[in-house]
Amino acid sequence: MYRIGVDLGGINIKFGLVDDACRVVVADSAPTPPDRTLEAVSNTIVASIHHLLDKAKIPMRELRGMGIGSPGAIDSVTGHVVFSNNFDWNDADICGQLQQQLHCPVYIANDAECAVMGEATAGNGVGCKNLVLLTLGTGVGSGILVDGKLLRGNGYGGIAGHMVIAEKGRQCSCGRKGCLERYASATALICEAEAILEKHPESLIGQHLVNQRVTGKTVFDAAQAGDPFAQEVLNQYITFLACGIGNLVNIFRPDKVLLSGGICNQEEALLQPLRSAVAQECFACTRIRIPPIEVATLKNNAGLLGAACLVE
Amino acid sequence: MYRIGVDLGGINIKFGLVDDACRVVVADSAPTPPDRTLEAVSNTIVASIHHLLDKAKIPMRELRGMGIGSPGAIDSVTGHVVFSNNFDWNDADICGQLQQQLHCPVYIANDAECAVMGEATAGNGVGCKNLVLLTLGTGVGSGILVDGKLLRGNGYGGIAGHMVIAEKGRQCSCGRKGCLERYASATALICEAEAILEKHPESLIGQHLVNQRVTGKTVFDAAQAGDPFAQEVLNQYITFLACGIGNLVNIFRPDKVLLSGGICNQEEALLQPLRSAVAQECFACTRIRIPPIEVATLKNNAGLLGAACLVE
Repeated sequence: MYRIGVDLGGINIKFGLVDDACRVVVADSAPTPPDRTLEAVSNTIVASIHHLLDKAKIPMRELRGMGIGSPGAIDSVTGHVVFSNNFDWNDADICGQLQQQLHCPVYIANDAECAVMGEATAGNGVGCKNLVLLTLGTGVGSGILVDGKLLRGNGYGGIAGHMVIAEKGRQCSCGRKGCLERYASATALICEAEAILEKHPESLIGQHLVNQRVTGKTVFDAAQAGDPFAQEVLNQYITFLACGIGNLVNIFRPDKVLLSGGICNQEEALLQPLRSAVAQECFACTRIRIPPIEVATLKNNAGLLGAACLVE
Repeated sequence: MYRIGVDLGGINIKFGLVDDACRVVVADSAPTPPDRTLEAVSNTIVASIHHLLDKAKIPMRELRGMGIGSPGAIDSVTGHVVFSNNFDWNDADICGQLQQQLHCPVYIANDAECAVMGEATAGNGVGCKNLVLLTLGTGVGSGILVDGKLLRGNGYGGIAGHMVIAEKGRQCSCGRKGCLERYASATALICEAEAILEKHPESLIGQHLVNQRVTGKTVFDAAQAGDPFAQEVLNQYITFLACGIGNLVNIFRPDKVLLSGGICNQEEALLQPLRSAVAQECFACTRIRIPPIEVATLKNNAGLLGAACLVE
């Protein structure tokens, strides 16, 4: 028997067919519909899953169910996305919608919660009872394990991306000002790089565009090529991310901090300066062990694997 | 049989004799020695306990042991205070010291952890499985229950007072800048009030001194008397405190948030504006229930009762 895992992102939706040994048998992705409506997203998911099953030559009856990792606050009992600022969804019954279309049980949890479950099950978090995972993408998601259990916070907790680190800071789409998400997401890094490129057209950032656009990789590449503007943007980004991680270390003191998202492909170029910065941010840093900061090894598959694990 | 609970504060040390039904039979306090050395603090504790036992006419042999709630990071296995920025202690073996002097088992935990245990056992947290308690005193301490269990974070977690809410903000004694403690402790409130009084000697703050000093009460009294300077200091204080509480609600979404410390004697004058401010700071605040914010009812006894509960 198989389970489907879906990882709902602001740019792409990832799908995977997971077997009973928690292995991703086949995976695929589709662009998130630009209008991001519940209907358009559901239709994309349904079409993509049929395509995936066809490709893997697996009939619907071999499917035990589907799990979805979604951004935002999820009511795990009703299966509703109570609120997602990235998708502009309010009390969206995505499980009901998909159950009707796919005729199989559908479960849901926050996307970063799925990612930490995935990593703890089969990735870089195996053996960790206390684990913090941050997803650095369109926003900043967080999945937190405490004593081996997912921190659910009455179903709505674990939203560390909306922890204010800069009081009266940048306006966040959640309504607060200065949320970690507005400083440490890939989106934030890109925005800052775009702004500095506009102000300083001589920056090498302009020479490292990907499909004529600034990406996370652009900033790292330009910095590595010796561009002081890119380096400055990167230094600031790392300072903010380290501030958020420092807060979470002081609160949870986990066995490990894992990072995921496309930006983590930069590996040591991100992790090395980040570790130095985090070391300064932890309470009693010279006396108490600072948790290792590493990349989530399942990378793109963590979310969908963890989502598949939701299927009972 | 009885247990002794000790609540170690920057200004006072509180002591209580607790019976097997978790009732505080008799309590007392002594000023914290001004130099705050391990030796001076230990001697004060020993002398005060002998005095307390004499007063209650209870012989040492009726004592099962002693629990201490201490600020800072505690190694609960060795009984050492690994680091306390308020006491400037490093790896201080207070349990060993007191065991030698008192000839009874001595246990230790973070003071705010003791307070949340106390409130959950016999105070305003009875029945709460997810509970956040902030102690607003010399610093800001935090005790957090997740699914009915104390968040220990490998022994060193739960230090939410050293969560940065204002990046590049006020210098904290822990080494970071912009920690919640530097904005939301009673000390921070008093510092701000003193600064504004110096700048605006016409402020009514000067007319509400307690023993010729600014206290938390001073600020509330002057604001209530219509002083705009005191009101401004108070508004800012509440904004910062609400920011920190908002962060913790987003992460933990507890059943309740409890506050303790002398400043809580102001009750609704503090809580009413605080609740309004926190409501703006919670993720999806119009859609997801915001936890009630209340005062810890055991007040001065929560810490010592929770500390006594450490005795096995």
